[in-house]
Amino acid sequence: MSMDRRSFNRRLVAGGAVAATGVTSLSVASAAPAPMAAAEGPKRAPAGGKVHHLTMVAERLGTGKIGYGFEKGKATVPGPLIDIVEGDTVHIEFTNLTDVDASLHVHGVDYDIANDGTRMNKSHVPPGGKRTYTWRTHKPGKRADGTYREGSAGYWHYHDHVVGTDHGTGGIRQGLYGGLVVRREGDILPDKQFTIVFNDMQINNLPGAQSPNFEATVGDRLEVIMITHGEFYHTFHIHGHRWADNRTGLLGGPGDTSRIIDNKITGPADSFGLQIIAGEGVGAGAWMYHCHVQSHSDNGMAGLFLIAKPDGTIPGYEPHHKTAAKKDGKDAQGASAQGTHTGH
Amino acid sequence: MSMDRRSFNRRLVAGGAVAATGVTSLSVASAAPAPMAAAEGPKRAPAGGKVHHLTMVAERLGTGKIGYGFEKGKATVPGPLIDIVEGDTVHIEFTNLTDVDASLHVHGVDYDIANDGTRMNKSHVPPGGKRTYTWRTHKPGKRADGTYREGSAGYWHYHDHVVGTDHGTGGIRQGLYGGLVVRREGDILPDKQFTIVFNDMQINNLPGAQSPNFEATVGDRLEVIMITHGEFYHTFHIHGHRWADNRTGLLGGPGDTSRIIDNKITGPADSFGLQIIAGEGVGAGAWMYHCHVQSHSDNGMAGLFLIAKPDGTIPGYEPHHKTAAKKDGKDAQGASAQGTHTGH
Amino acid sequence: MSMDRRSFNRRLVAGGAVAATGVTSLSVASAAPAPMAAAEGPKRAPAGGKVHHLTMVAERLGTGKIGYGFEKGKATVPGPLIDIVEGDTVHIEFTNLTDVDASLHVHGVDYDIANDGTRMNKSHVPPGGKRTYTWRTHKPGKRADGTYREGSAGYWHYHDHVVGTDHGTGGIRQGLYGGLVVRREGDILPDKQFTIVFNDMQINNLPGAQSPNFEATVGDRLEVIMITHGEFYHTFHIHGHRWADNRTGLLGGPGDTSRIIDNKITGPADSFGLQIIAGEGVGAGAWMYHCHVQSHSDNGMAGLFLIAKPDGTIPGYEPHHKTAAKKDGKDAQGASAQGTHTGH
Repeated sequence: MSMDRRSFNRRLVAGGAVAATGVTSLSVASAAPAPMAAAEGPKRAPAGGKVHHLTMVAERLGTGKIGYGFEKGKATVPGPLIDIVEGDTVHIEFTNLTDVDASLHVHGVDYDIANDGTRMNKSHVPPGGKRTYTWRTHKPGKRADGTYREGSAGYWHYHDHVVGTDHGTGGIRQGLYGGLVVRREGDILPDKQFTIVFNDMQINNLPGAQSPNFEATVGDRLEVIMITHGEFYHTFHIHGHRWADNRTGLLGGPGDTSRIIDNKITGPADSFGLQIIAGEGVGAGAWMYHCHVQSHSDNGMAGLFLIAKPDGTIPGYEPHHKTAAKKDGKDAQGASAQGTHTGH
Repeated sequence: MSMDRRSFNRRLVAGGAVAATGVTSLSVASAAPAPMAAAEGPKRAPAGGKVHHLTMVAERLGTGKIGYGFEKGKATVPGPLIDIVEGDTVHIEFTNLTDVDASLHVHGVDYDIANDGTRMNKSHVPPGGKRTYTWRTHKPGKRADGTYREGSAGYWHYHDHVVGTDHGTGGIRQGLYGGLVVRREGDILPDKQFTIVFNDMQINNLPGAQSPNFEATVGDRLEVIMITHGEFYHTFHIHGHRWADNRTGLLGGPGDTSRIIDNKITGPADSFGLQIIAGEGVGAGAWMYHCHVQSHSDNGMAGLFLIAKPDGTIPGYEPHHKTAAKKDGKDAQGASAQGTHTGH
Repeated sequence: MSMDRRSFNRRLVAGGAVAATGVTSLSVASAAPAPMAAAEGPKRAPAGGKVHHLTMVAERLGTGKIGYGFEKGKATVPGPLIDIVEGDTVHIEFTNLTDVDASLHVHGVDYDIANDGTRMNKSHVPPGGKRTYTWRTHKPGKRADGTYREGSAGYWHYHDHVVGTDHGTGGIRQGLYGGLVVRREGDILPDKQFTIVFNDMQINNLPGAQSPNFEATVGDRLEVIMITHGEFYHTFHIHGHRWADNRTGLLGGPGDTSRIIDNKITGPADSFGLQIIAGEGVGAGAWMYHCHVQSHSDNGMAGLFLIAKPDGTIPGYEPHHKTAAKKDGKDAQGASAQGTHTGH
């Protein structure tokens, strides 16, 4: 696998997102080409400090769902991935196109109480209303008293906090959630990104028979943003691949004693990220990912990483009617169908 | 925020605990002023090696609860926080003022089998009986064979192990539990401490409508001792603040790859601690903490960190009848109502 | 406790395993004496790179269970522990002696898609059939692009993926699972190993009244391979002992900020390992281990670490009819009854 192909994939993802959403206000950030990988290393996150101006809507989809999107008519479940760097600020002009109060509540980053996205703090938006939420991030550093302050980097997420109940139970159930990645300068950037949300007993609000598959080629550096929502605990498992149970999902070197895992218990609003090299040491294949709670996987909480050889073939894989059916679905979504704001 | 005010807060907490319990035998340890913070840094835990003699009772409260307290008539739920340093020893003369067998079982620290607090090991106490439990702690160090032995430092807890069942299910359900912090010499000390126990579907055994709020001022270094008990899993979430998922809840420096989180899955008898600077980077406000399992928060597993500006105001916050009702409750408790033994 | 006794224990364990299974093809690896401990340190894992050829069967036990074993008639629940070193390869000639399709799916290590052990990838085995599964492992190192690749070391496990459902729910429920340890060269080796599997509401598929006890002597370095399976979440707790929540279950030194714990939430297919020095700092005793979900322990998810003094006595411990009953059970198993493949 050459560096050229990787870079090509990355541009495709970023470019595809822009095209899908058509939000020209994003193009400066999203279309900014990632720094070209030097021959000797992967792409890495640049320094932060940018100010991003995004628009976001919440709107009903035709199938009992509500989604977030960067513009009207483009909402998806999960909502668009927002991918920024420590030091960045994001202003999100949020328009509520639904017929109920809705909001945007975020995890992990800095926001003052007027941006809490809760009814208690009067930071929700009535039907037809508009409000700008501001999220700030910061680098790690030293406080005035000499102690070390952690940075904002992490695999975070955003969600509604008011639809249905004061904790957004109805909004989350219907799909009002999305991923937020905050990187540290120098963090390794992936070639492809997939957001996987275990929400109640479904993945990305899709019925079990339509659980999403994700496509890649051997050697791609894949990033999974894994979020849990709803009522139940789950265990997230991938076949044939594993990751570090730490901030980046990657070991930095031999001194990192983080556990390497391929299965992780997770509960509502937990989120974590992982990077894997597709097929590394194991090759191409239709590699399952699934909740390992037995009744959950038996009822459909399982999908595939379809990792192809460079020639596009996947050994032993025969697409079956489950996948075919999914392609007919109006809401079927993989990473390619979601918007993405990559702010670096 | 000046160092002077922080130190003042700390003395208030420690002094308040002594006053609340009135246990003069604790005064030597608890009233010992924390080492004055140097202008350039926070207060830090001193060297361990002290021997503490505490008295503890278990007694029924008037509301279907049983609590631990440092003296008769002063039991609370959670029981008093015990806060010591590696190398310390604690002798607890425990008197069972209830009408059923009860005990004191502890997590994390060293005790011989006669101090197990279990019926099987005949280390429980009959009604009206008395028994001294001894807990020891140790610093990290090298074993004779050259391997590294971990120290006792951690956010631990104690609970009954015999009321209702041989695993103390009835005792725990009714409130027989409390926090235990063991610090390492040099660990950063907080200004204020809050013990939050998710016990079955309640917080600190308070009905949902009376979930405890915790008060602080922007800049206070808050410590949360988070314990789970009972039957269910939960996810602990705080709005606008986050912590390190490691031993101290704080990053020591850039080499620490621990994940920074604001949400954590936890099950019965799990415990962890975290320190946050109140309002750091986000300012004053009524910041929610809650279980993020949707039905749990919807049913009341949610409270507030009421973080005021230095002038005492909290932007956007209007105390409502929920809080007013709580003030009328006989068992309403915040950190200020619990006893605390701070052995440093 | 002398080094001599430790080495003696270790040989007993390894020898016992060989005797119990009678599989001479294992003898080269299993009987290979562990490197003699130098007077100043514990035994440590040697360099990897071995190729192991094992045979494995799945067979019905007489009690509604199905187990894995190294040979016909020797199946146990859990199946035999496989204990190897990074760089090793394991070829397992698997024979399905049951009357239903069965397979061998493994966590953590490298295998190509034809060794996935799933029906989807046609890597299961019909009744009476035979198939060789190959598992590979690798050391950590640098990739061509300069990034750090994690090694295979970890506390992993294997299980059926096809009995009952396409996720092996029936196979796992009936006992088709076992532990797999992959060590890094230099990792500290234990004196005794115990596999503890919380499977649905039982430990090692034994009824609550027969939960397994594990025997050791003060000073033994014990290793627990803890695996969860089935439908429920649990919290694993040991009395009087604790461990590091990291890759090895041990702290390497003062720079490791991993949390020290004695209680850990865990869900289906999670696995972790820990090493404890039996009775260190606390002495001999009948030390409970149990699930700390209250209804689970109350219903029998509790057993004992019976840690004896060098003279064989256990202070305060009176074996009761529960234990006596267990000895009559046909399937009663401790570590000594399971096969073990120790590939170092």
